[in-house]
Amino acid sequence: LLTEIISIGTELILGNIVDTNSAYLAEQLTANGIDIHYMTTVGDNRERLVMVLQQALSRADIIITTGGLGPTDDDLTREAISDVTGIPLKKVPALARNIEEYFKYRQYSMTENNYKQACIPEGSQAIRNLKGTAPGIILEIEGRTIISLPGVPREMRAMVQDEVIPYLRKLTQEKIKSRVLNFFAIGESRLETMIKDILDRQTNPSLALLAGNGEVKIRITAKGSSDQEINQLIYKAEQEIRNRIDKYIYSVDDLELAVVTGKLLQDKGLTLSTAESCTGGLISHRITEVPGSSGYFTGGMVLYSNQAKIEQLGVKTTTLEKHGAVSEETVKEMAASIRQKMKTAIGLSVSGIAGPGGGTEEKPVGTVFIGLAADDENLAFKLNLKGDRQWNKWMSSQYALYYLFRYLKNK
Amino acid sequence: LLTEIISIGTELILGNIVDTNSAYLAEQLTANGIDIHYMTTVGDNRERLVMVLQQALSRADIIITTGGLGPTDDDLTREAISDVTGIPLKKVPALARNIEEYFKYRQYSMTENNYKQACIPEGSQAIRNLKGTAPGIILEIEGRTIISLPGVPREMRAMVQDEVIPYLRKLTQEKIKSRVLNFFAIGESRLETMIKDILDRQTNPSLALLAGNGEVKIRITAKGSSDQEINQLIYKAEQEIRNRIDKYIYSVDDLELAVVTGKLLQDKGLTLSTAESCTGGLISHRITEVPGSSGYFTGGMVLYSNQAKIEQLGVKTTTLEKHGAVSEETVKEMAASIRQKMKTAIGLSVSGIAGPGGGTEEKPVGTVFIGLAADDENLAFKLNLKGDRQWNKWMSSQYALYYLFRYLKNK
Repeated sequence: LLTEIISIGTELILGNIVDTNSAYLAEQLTANGIDIHYMTTVGDNRERLVMVLQQALSRADIIITTGGLGPTDDDLTREAISDVTGIPLKKVPALARNIEEYFKYRQYSMTENNYKQACIPEGSQAIRNLKGTAPGIILEIEGRTIISLPGVPREMRAMVQDEVIPYLRKLTQEKIKSRVLNFFAIGESRLETMIKDILDRQTNPSLALLAGNGEVKIRITAKGSSDQEINQLIYKAEQEIRNRIDKYIYSVDDLELAVVTGKLLQDKGLTLSTAESCTGGLISHRITEVPGSSGYFTGGMVLYSNQAKIEQLGVKTTTLEKHGAVSEETVKEMAASIRQKMKTAIGLSVSGIAGPGGGTEEKPVGTVFIGLAADDENLAFKLNLKGDRQWNKWMSSQYALYYLFRYLKNK
Repeated sequence: LLTEIISIGTELILGNIVDTNSAYLAEQLTANGIDIHYMTTVGDNRERLVMVLQQALSRADIIITTGGLGPTDDDLTREAISDVTGIPLKKVPALARNIEEYFKYRQYSMTENNYKQACIPEGSQAIRNLKGTAPGIILEIEGRTIISLPGVPREMRAMVQDEVIPYLRKLTQEKIKSRVLNFFAIGESRLETMIKDILDRQTNPSLALLAGNGEVKIRITAKGSSDQEINQLIYKAEQEIRNRIDKYIYSVDDLELAVVTGKLLQDKGLTLSTAESCTGGLISHRITEVPGSSGYFTGGMVLYSNQAKIEQLGVKTTTLEKHGAVSEETVKEMAASIRQKMKTAIGLSVSGIAGPGGGTEEKPVGTVFIGLAADDENLAFKLNLKGDRQWNKWMSSQYALYYLFRYLKNK
């Protein structure tokens, strides 16, 4: 099935916002066995929008649009679909009532132009929007399908999960399911080498190796006639990979390191505190992005100066003088000390040179130490990162959480 | 001039990466007086790439492609341009030498397929790539221009600034310049109301009101025959806006709040420390993203539990009992105390309810207090935010930095 995604909105072609909807749709559809062939972006201009839709109908079986379903005069997707297909728009009373209820529940005043959103092409099917006012549209015409979704990401994403994917699965007439294994602390090429025979051999499930942002993923996609069959295929492939290389897998289905470590802390009833130098609070920020983190995260310190390390955390002056702030000894002391001060089960620490300044021949920019202290351990790990300041901070936080994950998993 | 951007790469249509290049190009070109009409994305497939280029040549005057200029068999942009235009590719010795030098300087070994990158269409002009190996291409053909750039964002961006924009400016044959004013703590509609007459009146410079991520911007774009004339036009418009609404402007040309406040601290020779509760380290993380921040940022504490607030920071138990952790009194004490402990000129603090849990009728989710302490002040500000956990954290950090900015500017 040839598929095209069309993103609609003048803010996109002005570059005011980055189009994340297309990538989201592409990832979700690909994981469900539908390949994308084209993506097109066009502004809120009826003539050009009609042209783009016409062209899509000439080269694709499935067309998914995002944007242009709002209540204002700029929102032209409904009209353009009607222009292209010759099918008139019709106001659907049930949709109008949904919109009225949306406003009533939120005690917002509803303006007349919102009723425009209750109009969909005759014979088309509406997609319920539980997070906003504009319903989506599924229109089947001459063996092709046009699916229109709103441009607001959280509305669009919910509708894709609830209705679009189930609908498309019926079109492809086979069951399909994916599972992602998330790897850290191993490069793409090394991972590929280690499981090359498995990668080469597979057809169902198929395995895709994906890389980006310092991580590697393997997406396992299986097809079959029953859920049970598919689940077994995925399970078998996952086990084969895990048997060879389990220790680099920290998560499945893209759950964040902060979420995964948080769950382990919660399950084991352990608490955590952090002492950060070069990461500057990024680790505690990531930990506290997770709802419920107050249950296991007590707090942390960001100690940018040596004086702060000594006075606030009690790192020994002799340690700093003898080994430097960026050293195994210092991060061990930092981790042990924050653990004691905050009275937590585990203390996690980082000290390093994020750059661009501060590097020396012995300790160049990117030299980072991670420390971890618990009742039974006081560990240190050394990193040699090769990025700019932001990358070095990010990867330091990744490694710190990854070492915490490894410790918790083996405990 | 009708313009189309084409993004090339299978990783894009698989949704493995989000296309930020198109938005970057659109923003840069729009700011230079060139409107984008279409954006198209296609995978590394020669047939479909040729089709997309053909279509672009039929509807656009300027075509800018990103991606597909690498050394591997998957990189097909050069070949597709040759297919579409009928112009053969030719190896340029000077470009081959550039590539050899790139590898030599980095002590990487160069494989034969890299010479492919030295081939460009006969009669076209190469764009020097100082950050990578693939040169760009400018090809003028029958009144149209195809510009091809690599897909790696930092390579592409440098080439756009150094060569593409100067080239395009000559095409448009008029001088143009933009300046962005960044506003915070004022809504789009309120800003629009306050300067509606200015917005309506302007033609040159033109004013565009942009909103997103809790901020509002005004882009002033002026055209003219000399730099002096343009600068005067921009200056006049900026002053007219500033006279009416200066206090909400924290930056020009999109400089981050953390950068702007950092510069003010540096200029005034002041130091800063932070005490964060609900933001969880996000403020110190943002401050330390700025190179050189160790010059004015001493450190901070993240105090998630009440116990940590009392034991580490010395917040009074009676304050917490009487007013709660989320209160004007608590953030004032937090700011004063971190300032004292870290021996800094200024202490900045936040305490609030980020959600989803923890809200009460009196203090619902989104209730946040910001505290600021200096030798002459001990201030508190209240926020009522309306987002989810991540949004509330982000906006709290924005407001904290904004109030710091206001304090520093008036000092």
